[in-house]
Amino acid sequence: MAKTNAGRFFEDYTVGETIRHAVPRTVKMGERALYHMLYPARHALYSSDQFAQGCGLPFSPLDDMIAFHVVFGKTVPDVSLNAVANLGYAQGRWLAPVWPGDTLRSESEVIGLKQNSNGKTGVVYVRTTGLNQHDEPVLEYVRWVMVRKHDTDAPAPDTVVPELPEAVAASDLVIPQGLDFTDYDFTLAGEPYRWGDYEVGERIDHVDGVTVEEAEHMMATRLWQNTAKVHFDTSARPDGSRLIYGGHVISMARALSFNGLANAQMVVGLNGGAHANPCLAGDTIRAWSEVLDKAETSAPGVGAIRLRLVATKGGEPFRLKGEDGKYLPDVLLDLDYWALMPM
Amino acid sequence: MAKTNAGRFFEDYTVGETIRHAVPRTVKMGERALYHMLYPARHALYSSDQFAQGCGLPFSPLDDMIAFHVVFGKTVPDVSLNAVANLGYAQGRWLAPVWPGDTLRSESEVIGLKQNSNGKTGVVYVRTTGLNQHDEPVLEYVRWVMVRKHDTDAPAPDTVVPELPEAVAASDLVIPQGLDFTDYDFTLAGEPYRWGDYEVGERIDHVDGVTVEEAEHMMATRLWQNTAKVHFDTSARPDGSRLIYGGHVISMARALSFNGLANAQMVVGLNGGAHANPCLAGDTIRAWSEVLDKAETSAPGVGAIRLRLVATKGGEPFRLKGEDGKYLPDVLLDLDYWALMPM
Amino acid sequence: MAKTNAGRFFEDYTVGETIRHAVPRTVKMGERALYHMLYPARHALYSSDQFAQGCGLPFSPLDDMIAFHVVFGKTVPDVSLNAVANLGYAQGRWLAPVWPGDTLRSESEVIGLKQNSNGKTGVVYVRTTGLNQHDEPVLEYVRWVMVRKHDTDAPAPDTVVPELPEAVAASDLVIPQGLDFTDYDFTLAGEPYRWGDYEVGERIDHVDGVTVEEAEHMMATRLWQNTAKVHFDTSARPDGSRLIYGGHVISMARALSFNGLANAQMVVGLNGGAHANPCLAGDTIRAWSEVLDKAETSAPGVGAIRLRLVATKGGEPFRLKGEDGKYLPDVLLDLDYWALMPM
Repeated sequence: MAKTNAGRFFEDYTVGETIRHAVPRTVKMGERALYHMLYPARHALYSSDQFAQGCGLPFSPLDDMIAFHVVFGKTVPDVSLNAVANLGYAQGRWLAPVWPGDTLRSESEVIGLKQNSNGKTGVVYVRTTGLNQHDEPVLEYVRWVMVRKHDTDAPAPDTVVPELPEAVAASDLVIPQGLDFTDYDFTLAGEPYRWGDYEVGERIDHVDGVTVEEAEHMMATRLWQNTAKVHFDTSARPDGSRLIYGGHVISMARALSFNGLANAQMVVGLNGGAHANPCLAGDTIRAWSEVLDKAETSAPGVGAIRLRLVATKGGEPFRLKGEDGKYLPDVLLDLDYWALMPM
Repeated sequence: MAKTNAGRFFEDYTVGETIRHAVPRTVKMGERALYHMLYPARHALYSSDQFAQGCGLPFSPLDDMIAFHVVFGKTVPDVSLNAVANLGYAQGRWLAPVWPGDTLRSESEVIGLKQNSNGKTGVVYVRTTGLNQHDEPVLEYVRWVMVRKHDTDAPAPDTVVPELPEAVAASDLVIPQGLDFTDYDFTLAGEPYRWGDYEVGERIDHVDGVTVEEAEHMMATRLWQNTAKVHFDTSARPDGSRLIYGGHVISMARALSFNGLANAQMVVGLNGGAHANPCLAGDTIRAWSEVLDKAETSAPGVGAIRLRLVATKGGEPFRLKGEDGKYLPDVLLDLDYWALMPM
Repeated sequence: MAKTNAGRFFEDYTVGETIRHAVPRTVKMGERALYHMLYPARHALYSSDQFAQGCGLPFSPLDDMIAFHVVFGKTVPDVSLNAVANLGYAQGRWLAPVWPGDTLRSESEVIGLKQNSNGKTGVVYVRTTGLNQHDEPVLEYVRWVMVRKHDTDAPAPDTVVPELPEAVAASDLVIPQGLDFTDYDFTLAGEPYRWGDYEVGERIDHVDGVTVEEAEHMMATRLWQNTAKVHFDTSARPDGSRLIYGGHVISMARALSFNGLANAQMVVGLNGGAHANPCLAGDTIRAWSEVLDKAETSAPGVGAIRLRLVATKGGEPFRLKGEDGKYLPDVLLDLDYWALMPM
């Protein structure tokens, strides 16, 4: 039994250490086909080589969320196997497109530790980097999780809490090399609305809904080699339910947001995110968005738009928190990201 | 909310207009692998590059129904989002194989309009063409749907009903370039029966059945980027059920027909089709076929066979309509197509 | 109806005959992506081209169990459509890696026949070989099944029972050309344990569990073009349940065994196997292993390890048979195989 991975506990982390996560993964067109089977993904730049070429890219990259899920999945056995809660994301940036045939691996640096006052758990902050086969970073983000202590007598580490800006500055976003939206085909993309048509504060109800099934979320989560027991094993939680991987909700909501944001093509920044309530099979996921900010970029015809993406399991759109400041019970996800859009 | 697609209503169509549908799609071997996972597809020409080469093709094309589903799926947001019923197909022809790596897009010309006497709905006839990245047509078919009016006061258009022959003439079928069945390997194909072994009027019970699941039909439908709400959202229909995409039934029945029609390799014509009754998860799909016609072709060793393919959800085979001329309640599909078979 | 395949019955087999099975299949990266979606497969050599290159291979081969399932699936219509029980496996050897783009087909030689005393059934022994597009064998194994007689008056054949050694001799295992584990990266592989760290008799509880769904096992089974009715059709068994393909349990257990056996990279021998009890949707599959034997090989840094892999649907690990010598009711699979591991 000593040979199986029991996961790390709070006392097993040291600020400054770097963890090289296991099981590199070569991703190709098969993973893209699966992504389009699991989510109603329709952003044209990720669907058609010719459309991507019309935007200055050599061909269609893999969906940005595939990169996120693969990189994230590798961290689970080392970071969140004994996690009580996934507390937040910050400072996420997509640094280079992932092309079919790339091999991804992940590394995480521990950048903060804070034991909780109960002495039983603590918060671990990691900065995770996804790298391709050329050792070039393709994605980085900060994530913090609450992790159990195994030995509650282990001494508390010095508290280190990293300073995390509320959002990635627009000037820090990395625009994929060659991207050019000056000849963008709005008809083939599916909607006529450009960067200039969106106003800060504007909200969009994405209208469509998808009722999720056990088989789907397990297959999606497995595809990213995410091994957290709670997603697969009905005996892992007291009520016998399988908790849906938060990333499944992210991808579903992002795909649903096509309807009203078809031209928010590339995700380049992850400012923050909260998995507000658990999602279970049988829930019908819906989504709405709010425009939080806009910025110009140096690339021809390319604007940046900062969006709040909210996934719900019912209820009216545009509701987020109650009078107590807490998320309403039917809110699943509150995500804050930057996307690139034709100007 | 103005930015989301509410779909077109009856009064939004004009005879003669051409709609360029959105979201082109590059399809590769991943889509083929998925097709073989979702359906019990075993026709050897679509399973093995070497078998296809033995039939004169450069390698194995994507299944003809993949081409149909991808082309059809793109039309949904513009043609059938507000459809009350899918009324029929006619004059369908596969014009060129779809190869892994091809990018497909769709266009539809409105060729007919007829307002119903109730003033609330009307029938829209479109001729849809699927095109590859070289702008070569790979598939065309006529489809007519009943669509709601949004503004019931909108004036009725002039009635235009296209003349639609009962079937594609055998002489109009397009045989893929190079196809040659003279060295056809019947053992590897799975059955010894050739074109000459089938007689007009002959009926075949395909014996096998598949009980369908929600996860499967949703993944299949999503794969083709078909966005119709009724397939995904349990709140879209009064009884909370998700209606299975008619094309899922077509592909399931075609795959089941391998058992008895293993050598009906390529689908080249779609003469007509009716989705006779709704299919829901839990139904067990079975299929039977009837030989309607036979014709020779100009390609070496290649014959054409016209088949009725009937999918049911139970009951005895070979039953289709009641004394009232209406489809029996357990009939799901009545499809009329041309396939190519070794002589 | 004469044209559909009713399957072979016991009296239809002759010792010495070779059956060429139908429907060759080209397998590529799409099939690999699906395998990683259907099973929690994480062995690094099958996940990353770069990792495989670090082990002396040109790139990452398809999982050994994909080869097994594809080769096995093709035999079903000719060998086990009328089987009452799958009795055993022996003398299985993987003879060459399967690379993306290979086309597989199967042949079986009938090597034994023994009518049962009841006169209604008999045991058929076949040696199945999987071949690639160069007609090179990639896999061979012996399997025996109990098959119904159609005509109980048909005379009993001479009894021929092949001699089947208990295990493949280590010296008969075929090591893939070029395989070299001297620069093996244990960190990227996920565990630090090498061949020398395992002792004969050692047992490992693989800890994780997966609750299986109907949609998943049907998709997996269909992917291998396995057509046995009992897996798909709720009307095929008296209780309305769909029996899960035994190979689905094999792949699930092998994938779960990563946790504790992450370095048992390549499966090269199949000594024996029993599907001890039926597996149904809703069961939670767990696995444990026992080290049965160890051997050196001629390849640099490569050791062979013989493992018993047991899949269960609950209960404590390490329990296998009752006092009566029969498998306990929660044991699903008892598999005996050889794998290659860094020394």
